[in-house]
Amino acid sequence: MNDINQKLDQQINERLDYWIGQLGRLCGQPSVSTQNWGITECADLVATMLEEQGYTAVIMPSGGHPVVYGEGDGRTTADGEAKTLLFYLHYDVQPPEPLDLWESPPFELTRRGDKFFARGVSDDKGHVITRLAALDAVRRVLGDLPCRVKFVIEGEEEIGSPHMPAFVVDHQEQLAADACIWEFGSVDAGGAPTQALGMRGICYVELTVETAVIDAHSGLGGSIFPNAAWRLVWALNTLKDQNERILIPGFYDNVVGPSARDLELLDKLPDHSAKMQEMYGLSGFVRGVTGGLALQRQAVFEPTCTICGITTGYQGPGLKTVLPAKASAKVDFRLVPDQSPEEIVSKLRAHLDAQGFSDVQVTYHGGGRPAKVDPDDPFVQIANETAVQVYGREPVIEPIIGGSGPNYPFIHVLGLPVVSAGIGYPGGQVHAPNENIRLEDFINGIRHTAYIIARFADG
Amino acid sequence: MNDINQKLDQQINERLDYWIGQLGRLCGQPSVSTQNWGITECADLVATMLEEQGYTAVIMPSGGHPVVYGEGDGRTTADGEAKTLLFYLHYDVQPPEPLDLWESPPFELTRRGDKFFARGVSDDKGHVITRLAALDAVRRVLGDLPCRVKFVIEGEEEIGSPHMPAFVVDHQEQLAADACIWEFGSVDAGGAPTQALGMRGICYVELTVETAVIDAHSGLGGSIFPNAAWRLVWALNTLKDQNERILIPGFYDNVVGPSARDLELLDKLPDHSAKMQEMYGLSGFVRGVTGGLALQRQAVFEPTCTICGITTGYQGPGLKTVLPAKASAKVDFRLVPDQSPEEIVSKLRAHLDAQGFSDVQVTYHGGGRPAKVDPDDPFVQIANETAVQVYGREPVIEPIIGGSGPNYPFIHVLGLPVVSAGIGYPGGQVHAPNENIRLEDFINGIRHTAYIIARFADG
Repeated sequence: MNDINQKLDQQINERLDYWIGQLGRLCGQPSVSTQNWGITECADLVATMLEEQGYTAVIMPSGGHPVVYGEGDGRTTADGEAKTLLFYLHYDVQPPEPLDLWESPPFELTRRGDKFFARGVSDDKGHVITRLAALDAVRRVLGDLPCRVKFVIEGEEEIGSPHMPAFVVDHQEQLAADACIWEFGSVDAGGAPTQALGMRGICYVELTVETAVIDAHSGLGGSIFPNAAWRLVWALNTLKDQNERILIPGFYDNVVGPSARDLELLDKLPDHSAKMQEMYGLSGFVRGVTGGLALQRQAVFEPTCTICGITTGYQGPGLKTVLPAKASAKVDFRLVPDQSPEEIVSKLRAHLDAQGFSDVQVTYHGGGRPAKVDPDDPFVQIANETAVQVYGREPVIEPIIGGSGPNYPFIHVLGLPVVSAGIGYPGGQVHAPNENIRLEDFINGIRHTAYIIARFADG
Repeated sequence: MNDINQKLDQQINERLDYWIGQLGRLCGQPSVSTQNWGITECADLVATMLEEQGYTAVIMPSGGHPVVYGEGDGRTTADGEAKTLLFYLHYDVQPPEPLDLWESPPFELTRRGDKFFARGVSDDKGHVITRLAALDAVRRVLGDLPCRVKFVIEGEEEIGSPHMPAFVVDHQEQLAADACIWEFGSVDAGGAPTQALGMRGICYVELTVETAVIDAHSGLGGSIFPNAAWRLVWALNTLKDQNERILIPGFYDNVVGPSARDLELLDKLPDHSAKMQEMYGLSGFVRGVTGGLALQRQAVFEPTCTICGITTGYQGPGLKTVLPAKASAKVDFRLVPDQSPEEIVSKLRAHLDAQGFSDVQVTYHGGGRPAKVDPDDPFVQIANETAVQVYGREPVIEPIIGGSGPNYPFIHVLGLPVVSAGIGYPGGQVHAPNENIRLEDFINGIRHTAYIIARFADG
């Protein structure tokens, strides 16, 4: 194996400039999903790049921005069956704004020292290139692909992957595989590779109250008109108490707590609480938790009810004596296994009605179910062992992370073990101006992906 | 008396074009207090106009925009004492924005049919001209002024008159008088003259919470970071219950309810509840009150706690998964006799601390005390009786109105009966684009003011 890895490293090194060129080519094509900017062009480019590498590629409708689906045949094994590895990726990016904070044009890959800057260079075009570069190296070393590969490269990840669950359900046979490599992966602040085995789900809603058709003067209506802002405050207050307990009846019914194995993994995680507290300027964490396992557990195994924003009435400087006709709040529930966004919306509606807030409208902006992979799955072991080979140290294994993504259909519909391997690092400015990757992480991400592919086919 | 009134009418009619010209001159000078636009120039112009009418005028510092103070000597009575009538007015106006909704330039008096349009034509430059025109007519009919007159014409009414209470206290001897005519006055939707005998006080605060130095990703911090939006919602919720009861301890301690005479006056008021409900598109009034005396009483004799606006986190379209570091709410308390803004701020602070919300900052944006005049004061009788002479019908007498203004120091420091008489009407678009007055109301406002002056000197 080490012999193959050495050969992979040599090929990756020889072809590095070519793949940096391809990274520049892909980052040069804007593809901002929320602004529908360059989406079709980027889907075409990704399909072309797959075809240039010898894969079939087809642009498939999803109900929203198209999915680029690719396939490549692998070497047939002795028993006539090739294993299949699925890559989930996305070609869309976050908006580049605010533009004036970029030190180089966002859609022009720019190298400064050992860093490469561009919108999407990490999230997620760098990962698309990483997968292609790794497969290229494997093929050059082994003569052909040791396994069948499939690519699902979507164009709506940055807007919450609204069509991905249905797409997977609708194309289960086409997407059938044995394992999946996810769209991200990174080293942590200490340089250790990380392995995220699951993601919380999400249920994003907007609560809206309208008590009048126009705002009123507060002197006129203050004592007698219903006030949309007050209705909203009272309604929100019924959702969560000051001890962070969510008060919607049945909210916790489907919560499955962490397993003993999950807790064991959490307990091994490095404690970033002091650094986090300093970076965000927090006086402390909620519920008085100070760090360690208690904080790690609360951070990822508790569902949340977060007010992301409220807007109502006058918000400018000084005073305006107005009684608002309309008020709204954006609320984001993070879900843990086995909650689902559909049950939460339905329980929220029932709760508001029962509390006398039938006037509060609930708009569902999107969501997805939580999902996690068995930490002892053999494919996870491959990812961990190859991480040690690449990074020279044990990976940090997170049984589930606080964020969300469309991993549920891949894990629970397709039934795949899903692992991450990639090129991110904490200074990558993902979603922000000056998004960047480091050359070393780019090389290591290709190496890790290539090692996994070689071992997967082998195993 | 009727003989004098007829002569007054004749003079007012003869001099109408002159005073419309003066109205155009004054409206042509911008004087937007909140933008500090044209304030000095307008104060100079008002002083000049007072001097042109034979009054002394002096521009006095107030701590903010200057006060134009004017005086005119009256005929000495048999016992050597002239009575003194004080006019409270203001030369500042609301901003003209949004400019594109004006059908003619806001600072150019424009006549269309029997209406005159300009920013300030009603509020309050039209009233300044009304007082000068009335005094002009009285002088022409009687040969000289039958009483001593004083003018307090301030430049900060539209920003809450922050310096007026102290100005009055500091100049009590200079402002000493026997009665006061207030800056406004209007007919109601049915054409009846109205007499507002008091105004609620106001206490305007902003509540601000800051839980971090930067917003966080809701997936990262949702379970462990304090959330400014939630802190604000929980704090606001402790201020008022869903039955509109304000929960700040001691809030109602100084409330003096309406007198039997107040209730008698309230009971005579026309019921505009159906019209109001339709205009604002209300499903109903708070506490289930439907109209009549109960609604009239609640509308003006109850103190309020109104959320005027809330701002926090993401407020754009769609979703953003952010955990806000900062949240703030503007809250306006309308006060009834004998509450004061100072006690409310202090009780609010104590309440928030007691409820565990020491992290919620309270910023006082301004306020003033409630005040009302005795409905049976002889000067009120003069205003009412002359209203019948001008309008041919009984005035609608409001013991107190829901809005606020700096009448407290005039009523309770100077000890004056204060009445209104003026040129407003419900379609006047005061504070909005296309502010306007009707010619008939302008003439009647001058007549009513002149009749009051003549009767006051006489009585």
